[in-house]
Amino acid sequence: MDLAIVNAWILTLAKNRLGIIKNGTIGIEGDRIGFIGSTDDIDTKKIDVIIDGKNHLVMPGLVNSHIHTSLTLLRGGAQDLPEIEWMNKGIGPLAKHLDSKDLILGSKLGVLEAIKTGTTTFSEYTRDVARLVEQVYLPIGARVVATETINEVAQVNKAALKPSDLYEFDNKKGQQALTKNDQLFEKYKNKPLVSCMYGPQALDMVSLDTLKTIKENAISRNSKIHMHVAQGKRERLQITGRFGKDASTVKVLDNHELLDNYLVAVHCHDTEEQERELMVSKNVKMVGCPSSISIIDGIIPPIYHYFSLGGKVGIGTDQAPGPGNHNLFREMRTISLLTKTQFRDPTAFPSWQMLFLITIFGAEILGLEKEIGTLEIGKRADVISFDMNNLLLTPMVSNPFHNFIPNLVHSATGTEVDNVIIDGKLIIHQRKFTSINEQKIIDEANKRAEKIFADASDDWKAAGSQMVKDVEKGLI
Amino acid sequence: MDLAIVNAWILTLAKNRLGIIKNGTIGIEGDRIGFIGSTDDIDTKKIDVIIDGKNHLVMPGLVNSHIHTSLTLLRGGAQDLPEIEWMNKGIGPLAKHLDSKDLILGSKLGVLEAIKTGTTTFSEYTRDVARLVEQVYLPIGARVVATETINEVAQVNKAALKPSDLYEFDNKKGQQALTKNDQLFEKYKNKPLVSCMYGPQALDMVSLDTLKTIKENAISRNSKIHMHVAQGKRERLQITGRFGKDASTVKVLDNHELLDNYLVAVHCHDTEEQERELMVSKNVKMVGCPSSISIIDGIIPPIYHYFSLGGKVGIGTDQAPGPGNHNLFREMRTISLLTKTQFRDPTAFPSWQMLFLITIFGAEILGLEKEIGTLEIGKRADVISFDMNNLLLTPMVSNPFHNFIPNLVHSATGTEVDNVIIDGKLIIHQRKFTSINEQKIIDEANKRAEKIFADASDDWKAAGSQMVKDVEKGLI
Repeated sequence: MDLAIVNAWILTLAKNRLGIIKNGTIGIEGDRIGFIGSTDDIDTKKIDVIIDGKNHLVMPGLVNSHIHTSLTLLRGGAQDLPEIEWMNKGIGPLAKHLDSKDLILGSKLGVLEAIKTGTTTFSEYTRDVARLVEQVYLPIGARVVATETINEVAQVNKAALKPSDLYEFDNKKGQQALTKNDQLFEKYKNKPLVSCMYGPQALDMVSLDTLKTIKENAISRNSKIHMHVAQGKRERLQITGRFGKDASTVKVLDNHELLDNYLVAVHCHDTEEQERELMVSKNVKMVGCPSSISIIDGIIPPIYHYFSLGGKVGIGTDQAPGPGNHNLFREMRTISLLTKTQFRDPTAFPSWQMLFLITIFGAEILGLEKEIGTLEIGKRADVISFDMNNLLLTPMVSNPFHNFIPNLVHSATGTEVDNVIIDGKLIIHQRKFTSINEQKIIDEANKRAEKIFADASDDWKAAGSQMVKDVEKGLI
Repeated sequence: MDLAIVNAWILTLAKNRLGIIKNGTIGIEGDRIGFIGSTDDIDTKKIDVIIDGKNHLVMPGLVNSHIHTSLTLLRGGAQDLPEIEWMNKGIGPLAKHLDSKDLILGSKLGVLEAIKTGTTTFSEYTRDVARLVEQVYLPIGARVVATETINEVAQVNKAALKPSDLYEFDNKKGQQALTKNDQLFEKYKNKPLVSCMYGPQALDMVSLDTLKTIKENAISRNSKIHMHVAQGKRERLQITGRFGKDASTVKVLDNHELLDNYLVAVHCHDTEEQERELMVSKNVKMVGCPSSISIIDGIIPPIYHYFSLGGKVGIGTDQAPGPGNHNLFREMRTISLLTKTQFRDPTAFPSWQMLFLITIFGAEILGLEKEIGTLEIGKRADVISFDMNNLLLTPMVSNPFHNFIPNLVHSATGTEVDNVIIDGKLIIHQRKFTSINEQKIIDEANKRAEKIFADASDDWKAAGSQMVKDVEKGLI
């Protein structure tokens, strides 16, 4: 055995149970899990590297099912704003001043913070995703499901458009993005850390013809379509304008045979209950982003409803400037509390359900359930350990129940993660990255962000969001 | 100057502004703040102990306006339960097995975890509060506002009561508790770390006569009445039973001249909008406990409404078994997100407002606004520093606005607090308690909790809550 964590509490999360093993060992051979069981049942002399798991919980690496990491340099740049101002007056004037290197640096920062809080698999969604794969994910050694954004809306002066004006499409633009997306599959077919999905941005931003081609390609490559679905008013205006006043995104997708197992539908807050029932019945996968959508829109994503219907649903952190960061422990608690208050039901979304959402459910949504998401012999070794030896998680008891299960959701901060193994490699050991200079990234990010925000200052002030007024009052 | 933090970003929070000082120094002389200003304006040779504040934020110590620390050994013991089961089937069967030492140990754990995440003032509410003051707060060196619980309900077999049966009162019991409460003022009059309030538990648990005596005593001592108000159905049944079908807690308090500046009303989720307007107009102070009430009841406390009316409102963490822990950074983010979704308004409760709730507002509620809550020369030195040099809070920019203000609320976990000064004493230095063995408390808590939970196992199983069923399914 190359590496093992011994004497730990293990949560396998296999077979829809917690699968708790007391005084357990997880052993890793190469990039796979080679042993799981009691520490008494393994000869520790035959392990090359041993990590002591005393007072630790070991669980599958977490799966972030929807993330755009490249805006992370703008963290804290657009919060507490009216939804209508968020993009145009908040994040937009700042983002204009990011160059392509800033997107890479921001992505590094986002990926590192997510790994530090236990994430091992990233469902990354962006233009030119191959750049992030090459320059961020592969060098860091994180598992990535790469989605290339396919946006077919013609380059026009958006400011001149009224919300009800229909977008024009530029089929050539769509085709170019699709070609890029197609090429990913060939490029990464031999990289175990990388898999790929198709990324039509949303039904209002892609023509039906292009969507149909995407579907054919997804079928032929046995891949999936990762798409923002029913994101709100602006999308709805486009859809009713194009498809008639009774149209909705879900109905249109259904009418064109796009509502099925191939679809990973993100957000979905502008869907009706019946539409979600239809989506579940058609085996559509859903991803919700609790912190992002609640902060930017004041809306609770329908994660619990989808889950309650028996649908497969995962969690993403979206981007940093809205929700603040990419910490899935925080997302568990956020959707739990939001849901409890939404339905005035303290039993909604108990802690054990949360743990499945950010592990095996995420893996299933990304088509990786045979490789990751649970701790089972033969699966790829994506494993995290969690230090329970701290005030906020004390005491830790196991009889008559394991109080550390609710505590993982309701008390943990995510900073307790202290060992992270991805594909068998020890990426974080005792809270330190083994081969990445974290401080260097922090320093670079601070230096570069200072310049970006300063350069953007005039544009940002001219946009005149609520935040600008708060600055004048000395409040931010 | 005895002690100073230099080269830091300082938030004074004085005069209803953030009061940001760049490259600032806070100097402490004895138990008071002796200097605040630019580091350039102080002769550092005249400072005995210097703490480097580079990449740090310095702010007033946080104020927890309502806390019961003594149940902390039961953390994770009762979550995701129906409200009706929480007390009787969840926490009750476990709490029965706590002895008086366990309450002290639990309190130590709770106070230490709160200090570790930046709390310096605790509005503690419990029976025999002097024991906690003597054995926990004073030895640790934390600031405490001690409230003795006054509960006058006669000892009867509660299981035999129907919810609509009116409680009998035992006036002697009430008097004894009141006497204990009175004695606190004399006992602690010379302790700068301790102040006291009166603690009638709730209107359904105390007679009007006793309440009137309490009010007279509060007036004569220039103290306040710290009381749970309008906590829900059970209370309402008692109030309508005693005072008539149209009665409510707020109306009864108003009719008996108990609704005024002397009242600190906790929870208040079973109040009408108009009642809250009345409370604000009468200068009643309010405290809400976001995580506790959302987890236990599925209810969002009316903190934002009270604040929007111009009312003075603070934040508490209540107890640990419901919300998980005593971390005020988490509470800021929790009430911010809950409020945004409640009103579908992403601008509700912007970050800068949150910072006031857990500092100067808390101080005003507890009658300590002249002593603590802001950083001003002459105030008592309750000061925390916060390490911004980490991935989750990077980047940190200050132009055209201070992105670290929203990041404090939306990205921080509370574990970034690394220096805590209370009444001029350095309690935590570089994340370590200066004179308390934290590991010893953790180990004792684990050992003792293991026994408590095991001893309680049969009772807990017999109570048959939803959690018991989940254990049988291997889910907790």
